[in-house]
Amino acid sequence: MLSNRKDIHVEWGDCDPAGIVYFPRFFEYFDACTNALFEAAGFRKAEMLKHYGLVGIPLVEASAQFHAPASFGDMLTIESRIVEWGNSSFRVEHELYKSGVLAAQGREKRVWTVRDVGAKTGIRGQQIPEEVKARFG
Amino acid sequence: MLSNRKDIHVEWGDCDPAGIVYFPRFFEYFDACTNALFEAAGFRKAEMLKHYGLVGIPLVEASAQFHAPASFGDMLTIESRIVEWGNSSFRVEHELYKSGVLAAQGREKRVWTVRDVGAKTGIRGQQIPEEVKARFG
Amino acid sequence: MLSNRKDIHVEWGDCDPAGIVYFPRFFEYFDACTNALFEAAGFRKAEMLKHYGLVGIPLVEASAQFHAPASFGDMLTIESRIVEWGNSSFRVEHELYKSGVLAAQGREKRVWTVRDVGAKTGIRGQQIPEEVKARFG
Amino acid sequence: MLSNRKDIHVEWGDCDPAGIVYFPRFFEYFDACTNALFEAAGFRKAEMLKHYGLVGIPLVEASAQFHAPASFGDMLTIESRIVEWGNSSFRVEHELYKSGVLAAQGREKRVWTVRDVGAKTGIRGQQIPEEVKARFG
Repeated sequence: MLSNRKDIHVEWGDCDPAGIVYFPRFFEYFDACTNALFEAAGFRKAEMLKHYGLVGIPLVEASAQFHAPASFGDMLTIESRIVEWGNSSFRVEHELYKSGVLAAQGREKRVWTVRDVGAKTGIRGQQIPEEVKARFG
Repeated sequence: MLSNRKDIHVEWGDCDPAGIVYFPRFFEYFDACTNALFEAAGFRKAEMLKHYGLVGIPLVEASAQFHAPASFGDMLTIESRIVEWGNSSFRVEHELYKSGVLAAQGREKRVWTVRDVGAKTGIRGQQIPEEVKARFG
Repeated sequence: MLSNRKDIHVEWGDCDPAGIVYFPRFFEYFDACTNALFEAAGFRKAEMLKHYGLVGIPLVEASAQFHAPASFGDMLTIESRIVEWGNSSFRVEHELYKSGVLAAQGREKRVWTVRDVGAKTGIRGQQIPEEVKARFG
Repeated sequence: MLSNRKDIHVEWGDCDPAGIVYFPRFFEYFDACTNALFEAAGFRKAEMLKHYGLVGIPLVEASAQFHAPASFGDMLTIESRIVEWGNSSFRVEHELYKSGVLAAQGREKRVWTVRDVGAKTGIRGQQIPEEVKARFG
């Protein structure tokens, strides 16, 4: 299974008055890592969306466990992989390391999503092409 | 059990190129709602932190399910309650409604946290005062 | 000239490790206030974009002066008005008050912008309809 | 004069429904670049704050001009330098390039700030040490 590692430098603006990363920023980090994972598989998201007529790959579930805080100036390494392919959805797992220690874990369930003016929400899931899945090994 | 309702107006800057709320923003909404819940219980967070010597009430777990997207201009209503008290931690649940329909759910596990220079992470959990729990009914 | 007042509650996640509002958030506040000003003039931005075929009203200039910091829990009041109409651009001014004292000022120059696949940047300015200007008095 | 170049990858979450970088994110980029500039001068901000007893180097003025939009996936290069030293304040200029073309410019006026419980705002400016200025050439 293809996995990807991405380094993220914790910025001042990512941290809250407690001096630690404001937790929604971890979800932003994870999101950037999912995009980087697709790019590692040969799919630059911007072009992939255009090529497959996607509106995006929005989440239906997201979760995280935070084992240790991170602070401004920390360099984090996040390792990401797709752990499950469904028909129109897939699951991503992220492991976030700080100085080699697992500091947080994230999980996402995302949907391969196209615009659908007839749908109540304006969007709907669509079958993920096999050629896409294949690139993740 | 005390619950609190908070209205949130989806701003342009909360939304992504798909035209829908960028999912980490939902966690920001939920965080603001937890603070509003404490305020409804008589604890303005800024003063509460000072009064109890807290560095914050950071999360050790966060999760959400997204049932329907929200877009710029939507008015959302989020209902929040504490569903479980531990010794030094507690769980919060959020239900997010759009036009009366449940559009997302969030769960947080937070820790009553004080600064501890001796701890490896610089912070540690502390027992939640009974008077605090009591205010949530 | 039409002006609009909007109250903004400073959230925990808006503040940085210094315990004060992270300055880019003030620009987010100002952006939300410009949208609220248009809404006060009868133009809900989401519908306005659709009606006039706009991709948005992006900024070509933004500036702010910060006279006093704001912190988590503060209730701010921002007064906004359009101070100049150009052909395809306009200028907005924001005055941000904290407890009745002017704490910050913001200025924006925005462009009435449509998609243009032929343009180098993919977008271009377009003449602002007189009916729009008229609604701001 | 010391200058520093920092590459920034535009993330999905940095962009708005128009598909371009939401302008307050440019101010976040500039802020990260000022911190990177100090680091290039030998001052890692986290340690610098501690060493000099600073609460931060908050802004009293910020401005930007946006010449061309940037979109998800773009790699930007920002060149930053301090252009003026005052007694307790200094000015930073940022030039943001996209594919070698100047796409935006930013200016910041920041203050060397310490906590002061006696001050009305709780903070006040302090003289910038000559040793700090010297490191920027």
